[in-house]
Amino acid sequence: MDLTTAFETYAQEHRQKYMALYLALRDAIVHGRLAPGERLPSSRALAADYGLSRGTVNAAYDLLAGEGYVTSGVGRGTFVSRLPAGEGAATAERSAEAVPPRLSAWGARAVSLPPRERAAHGFAVHYGTAETDAAAFPAAEWHRAMYAAARASAAHGAAFDARGWLPLREAVARHLGRARGIAATAEQVVIVNGSMQALALLVQLLVDPGDPVVIEHPGYGGIRRAVLAAGAEPVPAAVDERGLVPAPWRARLLVATPNRQFPTGAVMPLERRLALLRWAAGADAWVVEDDYDSEFRRAGRPVEPLKSLDAQGRVVFVGTFSRTMYTGLRLGYAVLPDALLPAFLALKGLYEPHPTAMTEQRAMAEFMKNGGYERHLRRMKRLYSRKYEALIGGLREKLAHAFATQPQDAGLHVYARWTGSREAYLELIEACARRGVTWTDVSYCDASGEPVCAAAFGFSGLTIEQIRFGLDVIAQAEAEGLGSRKGGIRSV
Amino acid sequence: MDLTTAFETYAQEHRQKYMALYLALRDAIVHGRLAPGERLPSSRALAADYGLSRGTVNAAYDLLAGEGYVTSGVGRGTFVSRLPAGEGAATAERSAEAVPPRLSAWGARAVSLPPRERAAHGFAVHYGTAETDAAAFPAAEWHRAMYAAARASAAHGAAFDARGWLPLREAVARHLGRARGIAATAEQVVIVNGSMQALALLVQLLVDPGDPVVIEHPGYGGIRRAVLAAGAEPVPAAVDERGLVPAPWRARLLVATPNRQFPTGAVMPLERRLALLRWAAGADAWVVEDDYDSEFRRAGRPVEPLKSLDAQGRVVFVGTFSRTMYTGLRLGYAVLPDALLPAFLALKGLYEPHPTAMTEQRAMAEFMKNGGYERHLRRMKRLYSRKYEALIGGLREKLAHAFATQPQDAGLHVYARWTGSREAYLELIEACARRGVTWTDVSYCDASGEPVCAAAFGFSGLTIEQIRFGLDVIAQAEAEGLGSRKGGIRSV
Repeated sequence: MDLTTAFETYAQEHRQKYMALYLALRDAIVHGRLAPGERLPSSRALAADYGLSRGTVNAAYDLLAGEGYVTSGVGRGTFVSRLPAGEGAATAERSAEAVPPRLSAWGARAVSLPPRERAAHGFAVHYGTAETDAAAFPAAEWHRAMYAAARASAAHGAAFDARGWLPLREAVARHLGRARGIAATAEQVVIVNGSMQALALLVQLLVDPGDPVVIEHPGYGGIRRAVLAAGAEPVPAAVDERGLVPAPWRARLLVATPNRQFPTGAVMPLERRLALLRWAAGADAWVVEDDYDSEFRRAGRPVEPLKSLDAQGRVVFVGTFSRTMYTGLRLGYAVLPDALLPAFLALKGLYEPHPTAMTEQRAMAEFMKNGGYERHLRRMKRLYSRKYEALIGGLREKLAHAFATQPQDAGLHVYARWTGSREAYLELIEACARRGVTWTDVSYCDASGEPVCAAAFGFSGLTIEQIRFGLDVIAQAEAEGLGSRKGGIRSV
Repeated sequence: MDLTTAFETYAQEHRQKYMALYLALRDAIVHGRLAPGERLPSSRALAADYGLSRGTVNAAYDLLAGEGYVTSGVGRGTFVSRLPAGEGAATAERSAEAVPPRLSAWGARAVSLPPRERAAHGFAVHYGTAETDAAAFPAAEWHRAMYAAARASAAHGAAFDARGWLPLREAVARHLGRARGIAATAEQVVIVNGSMQALALLVQLLVDPGDPVVIEHPGYGGIRRAVLAAGAEPVPAAVDERGLVPAPWRARLLVATPNRQFPTGAVMPLERRLALLRWAAGADAWVVEDDYDSEFRRAGRPVEPLKSLDAQGRVVFVGTFSRTMYTGLRLGYAVLPDALLPAFLALKGLYEPHPTAMTEQRAMAEFMKNGGYERHLRRMKRLYSRKYEALIGGLREKLAHAFATQPQDAGLHVYARWTGSREAYLELIEACARRGVTWTDVSYCDASGEPVCAAAFGFSGLTIEQIRFGLDVIAQAEAEGLGSRKGGIRSV
């Protein structure tokens, strides 16, 4: 490997070349660019590299060795020494005075976005909403698809189609046709690096700073982040037990989760879907349908996605494999109306002219084509149904007085509304966390500013034993809290 | 797999449920959502799914079979028939009247960007600038790293660090320290989906619409696209045989290729680098150093990247593995000053909250850690040097009167300036393409509006035989063109 030093910089100040080289190498060692134990090039190689005589390089090496920066022996080579403490402590040249960043409007908005919900770590039981069951994942079958994909990927150059790998787009179109009733061609499907990429690009593409965008309230934080990053105005839409409530908004864009509202889990009935599409037609607005969590349906009739009812080509359907496969697989897809496709591809292609994560894309295409994905979905549907029953059964049995729940026809979490005071809820969260049990807090303030306390209990990443154990812990903490409050002066 | 149909839509119009189900299924078959040969669920399963009686489903299936939409047999199941031509020809419901898209300012700029340079296909010899030598790629070694990465990826959930896989960032920091003299910690390194993602995000982060951004002229089209997409004003900077010429620009940002200018291949000398950094300090500007093509140095001293000279923390260094590994591997990296790091991560994390392409990231980390990458670079350096010699030797031997060339100390293409008329150059391009030989045309207009005709002859993806054969074709076409023009009245 080449070795780049500050030789030229020092050569401007020092006539003797061996001195410039010595200083340049010493510099690299002291500042950690050359790590202790690293082997320096032979004097012959370094001389050739820098157009110097071997004598010059040897003189520099001798100086370095004399001062202890390197050690060498005949026939062994020259190695960077471990420096004594205090000397060259900086492993990197941090700029002493950092320039205060002057950012664009986009940059300024991006740094001030609300923080992302982060996965909880180190808890005995975390009812997370984005986990999958790693133990039930068909690893061997998936690995075979990945191995084949890995071999194929390196043999090929870059493709120029920002849409993604065609066989995967075909498989997605076929899957959506059957499983979700969406008629899409592979040309209308674009593979993305997770559904958040699609949501952020769509908002960036469709609205300008100040434009109103309808989002659900309560709703998914990622959608709100995308709207805020574009400088647009979030217009909160109310949500009831039948999902988002249509209203005569003035907006260019609406982003919603009709197939399973986040976090409430409400499934929007057909009349409301049609009303939403009528609104979009009247308002000349686009609708983004975030289908983040509706593959695992346990009850109720299959719902027709907005996209399948979209006669005017106003709906973009966004889906993801992160919840059906594993969260580290950052593959999602968007189904775009023809009118929007070129603009979406132009914007995505600006950042990624070539499709990315081709190994994963190829493997996923094969996994879908050979039926592995369908088998996996069927198996997980049964498994997740059992976990769901354990969770909702346990909540009703042990915590019905504390959390109000509704049956959830699909998805991987149970929405539970806290029936007590906000103070008591926050106490419960803290008491449970101390005992190693956490969930996703989805509390919010309603239109009148009143706090609504609620929990999203994800169950997909937990075993049935963990689900039950966690509920026992919560029930016990809740009972103790109730006791302490009863004894005190706090009102519930 | 679930089967979603328009049952609910039809059920609103038809009191008889079997009729609604029949129409919904017919609809799905006619519009191609259910493909010929697909197996329908058993009547028992479908009845359970839709909460209908089995008799209702059987009645609908009987109607479908009677009209030829499905075929069935006892114990075989029910399958979608192949429809006669003319019926259900539409494989997807394209919206009859597409909504004309109303885009954001970003969207409008994205769709009107100049087209990307596309890879040439179907030519016998294409002197492309972005190809790699697939035959010399250490496939077995790389595949082992990929297999291990594939096994590890699926077992893990999503990481929340938008920076990328830590061991890869550590390996990049170490490589840059030694090979490029850049002192960076793994915290300052961000893995991106190819260098274009870093360039586009940086421009979006640092400039607003109307802001001037200095870019090289001639220069890399991707940089210009990123500047235009952000709505910023490209300020063209002159390029001579020592690279970009410093000037007292008024700008917030400069994007340059100092280590090997694209397309001229010029390497910027140290004085000019220091002048550029002095300008940035005085103008309070950021500098993005696009190091797209300087890993393969054949001659000259190793150059100190701007980033290694950057005492004030104003330089972002952007590099890529696409040219050293293979073009389909969309992995690059950016080394950011501490002051800019949080904002860059916030913006990147908006689109990609989790790192993407984890299989490739893990494999690359392992490949670098076990020395495979270094060995590969050393081998390719020798191989590419031989190809370079064949190309520049051939150009000088056969086409010295037509193309002016300079030795290129590094990189994977030779810049050659056409010495004749623009008309003759365009004729030559056409004549050669007819004979199956193409290259990247990098002609441009200089500051006074005069066209400068030039070619970038990439050699990395061609064999030495192909390099020589192509030059023979070009030389012959050029000689014939010269003959025809001499006989005519055109001036050269």
